[in-house]
Amino acid sequence: MDPAGAATDTAAMSGLELLEAIRDDRLPGPGVARLLGMRMAEVEVGRVVFELHTRAELGNPLGTVHGGITATLLDSAMGCAVQSALPAAATYTTVDLSVTYLRAVPYDGRPLRAEGRVVHVGGRIATAEGRVVDGDERLVATATTTCMIFRDSAR
Amino acid sequence: MDPAGAATDTAAMSGLELLEAIRDDRLPGPGVARLLGMRMAEVEVGRVVFELHTRAELGNPLGTVHGGITATLLDSAMGCAVQSALPAAATYTTVDLSVTYLRAVPYDGRPLRAEGRVVHVGGRIATAEGRVVDGDERLVATATTTCMIFRDSAR
Amino acid sequence: MDPAGAATDTAAMSGLELLEAIRDDRLPGPGVARLLGMRMAEVEVGRVVFELHTRAELGNPLGTVHGGITATLLDSAMGCAVQSALPAAATYTTVDLSVTYLRAVPYDGRPLRAEGRVVHVGGRIATAEGRVVDGDERLVATATTTCMIFRDSAR
Amino acid sequence: MDPAGAATDTAAMSGLELLEAIRDDRLPGPGVARLLGMRMAEVEVGRVVFELHTRAELGNPLGTVHGGITATLLDSAMGCAVQSALPAAATYTTVDLSVTYLRAVPYDGRPLRAEGRVVHVGGRIATAEGRVVDGDERLVATATTTCMIFRDSAR
Repeated sequence: MDPAGAATDTAAMSGLELLEAIRDDRLPGPGVARLLGMRMAEVEVGRVVFELHTRAELGNPLGTVHGGITATLLDSAMGCAVQSALPAAATYTTVDLSVTYLRAVPYDGRPLRAEGRVVHVGGRIATAEGRVVDGDERLVATATTTCMIFRDSAR
Repeated sequence: MDPAGAATDTAAMSGLELLEAIRDDRLPGPGVARLLGMRMAEVEVGRVVFELHTRAELGNPLGTVHGGITATLLDSAMGCAVQSALPAAATYTTVDLSVTYLRAVPYDGRPLRAEGRVVHVGGRIATAEGRVVDGDERLVATATTTCMIFRDSAR
Repeated sequence: MDPAGAATDTAAMSGLELLEAIRDDRLPGPGVARLLGMRMAEVEVGRVVFELHTRAELGNPLGTVHGGITATLLDSAMGCAVQSALPAAATYTTVDLSVTYLRAVPYDGRPLRAEGRVVHVGGRIATAEGRVVDGDERLVATATTTCMIFRDSAR
Repeated sequence: MDPAGAATDTAAMSGLELLEAIRDDRLPGPGVARLLGMRMAEVEVGRVVFELHTRAELGNPLGTVHGGITATLLDSAMGCAVQSALPAAATYTTVDLSVTYLRAVPYDGRPLRAEGRVVHVGGRIATAEGRVVDGDERLVATATTTCMIFRDSAR
C-alpha cells in the first residue's frame, strides 16, 4: 500500500481523517463493503452516507432486498457518523441497533442510499439516527443506534 | 430444479414446508444466503437456526465481523421462525428489528450460529427473539423482531 | 361534561380534532396524565408536545426521574403525533417503543418537555420519533415508535 | 427509619442486598412505585418481579392501561434484575429500553406482573429481557434493555 515506506499512521488520525481516507481510496475499505458493493459516498463531521445498487444477490426469498442488507447499510452509516465525530485514539463499538422497515425494495438495480447522523456524543455513549431512501427518494427504513466510546486507544 | 416439469406449488405449502424444502435444497435459497455463505441448519415450528463461517469478506474496518452480518443472521433466523408458524397462503413482513451486540467476533473462520424463536403469533402481529453464539457457545448478540402477518395471499 | 345534552360525537372527529379538544379541556384527558401531572402543551398535524414538572413521586431509587416516566412522556407524544395524522374512524395501537436515555434528570421541579413527530404514515403502519429536553433545552432522551393503524372503526 | 442511629450503610451492600431490603420494607422504595402502586414481589440474583393492580388512573384515552405504565414496570423489573447481579459499590444506568406490546389491557383491577431476567453481565455493559403477563398468564408485552455498569462507586 505504501511503497515509499511512509506507512500511514492511522493511530494519529481522527475519525474524520480515517473515513475521508477510505472514501478517497487512500485506505482500504472493509471486506463487507466490497462483498455487498456498498460504498461510502459522503463524509463530514457527524454525517456519513453509504450507497449500493440492488441486485439479486442481496435478495431474500420474498423477492425483495433482504432486511439484513438494509440493516448493514444503516449500521455502517450510523457507526461511521459516530466515528467521524471522534478524535484520534478514540474508538467505538456498537451496542444497540434498531431498524424499522417501511417499504419493501425490489432488487432490480435501483440504488439505496443510507444517511447516518449523530444525535448525541457524550463521554461514554453516543447515539445516531439513520434513514434509507431509494432512487426516487422514497423512505425505505429508519434506524437508531447506541455506541460505546473508548476515549483512549488502550481498550 | 424440476426436470419432470411438475413445478412445486409453493402457494399450497405451509411456511414450515417451504422452509424445509429450502433446508433440503429442494427449493433454492435466497441470493443473500449464497453471497454471505449463510445456510439454514435447522427448522421446526417456531424455531429456525442459521449458520455461517466468518471470513475477511464479512469484516468491518475494526477487524471484526460487521454488525450488519450479525443482524442479517438474526433477521433471517427470526423471520423464518415466524414463517415456520404460518399456514399456507399467509405471508409476513418485518416491521422492526432490534439487535444488541455483546461481543466482537474476529473473522478467522470461526462459526456463528443464530437461533430464532417465536415469542407470540397473533392475528396481525408476530414477535420473535434471537441469539447468536460463536463456536465456543459464547453469546455474541441478542435480538428481537416484530413482523406483520397477512393472513391471505392477496396482499 | 355536557349539560345541554349535545354529547360530543367523538366518532366523527378526526385525530387532530380529538387531541385539540383534550388540549383545550373540552374532553377529559387520560387518567395517567392526571396522575403524573403530564399535560398536552401543543398539537398540530404530525407533531404533539407533552410536558410535566419533575417531583420526588416520579423518582427512582437512584435519586433521579424514573426511566418509565420518561418513556411515558415519549409514548404519549409519539402516539398522539400519529393520532393527529389519522382521519375520523381510524384508530391505532402502539406495537413497539424504543427509548435511548442520554442524561439522568434530578427530580427537583425542573420541567421536562417531550416532542413527538410523525416520520411515516402508511396504510397499516405508522412510525414516529421523539425527544425529551429539560428546562435548559438539554437532550435527555430520544425514542422511536411503530404503530399499527386500523382504518375503520370496527376493530 | 432508624431510631437507634445505626444508619444502614447502603454503600457496603450488594445490589441483591439493597433490593431485598426494599422488598422487605427495610429501605424505602422509590417514589414512582408508591405513585403507581407498583411493588417488588420477588428478587433473586439475576431475576426480579414487579406487580401492580390496574386502575383508571393508569389508563390512556383508548380505555386501556397506558403503554408508559407497562414500560415502567418492565424498566423496573429489568433494571433491578441487572442491579441484583452487581457487587457493592457498583452502579448502573439504563441506556436503551425497547418494548413490544402484544395485547391491550383493560384497567379493571386485574393484576399485571413484570418479570426481568439478566441475559448478560459484562465489564461495562449488561442486558436483560422482560415480559409482562396479566392475571390469566396471558403475555401482554415483552422487552429488552441495555445498561451501562460503573464498577466503582466514584461515577
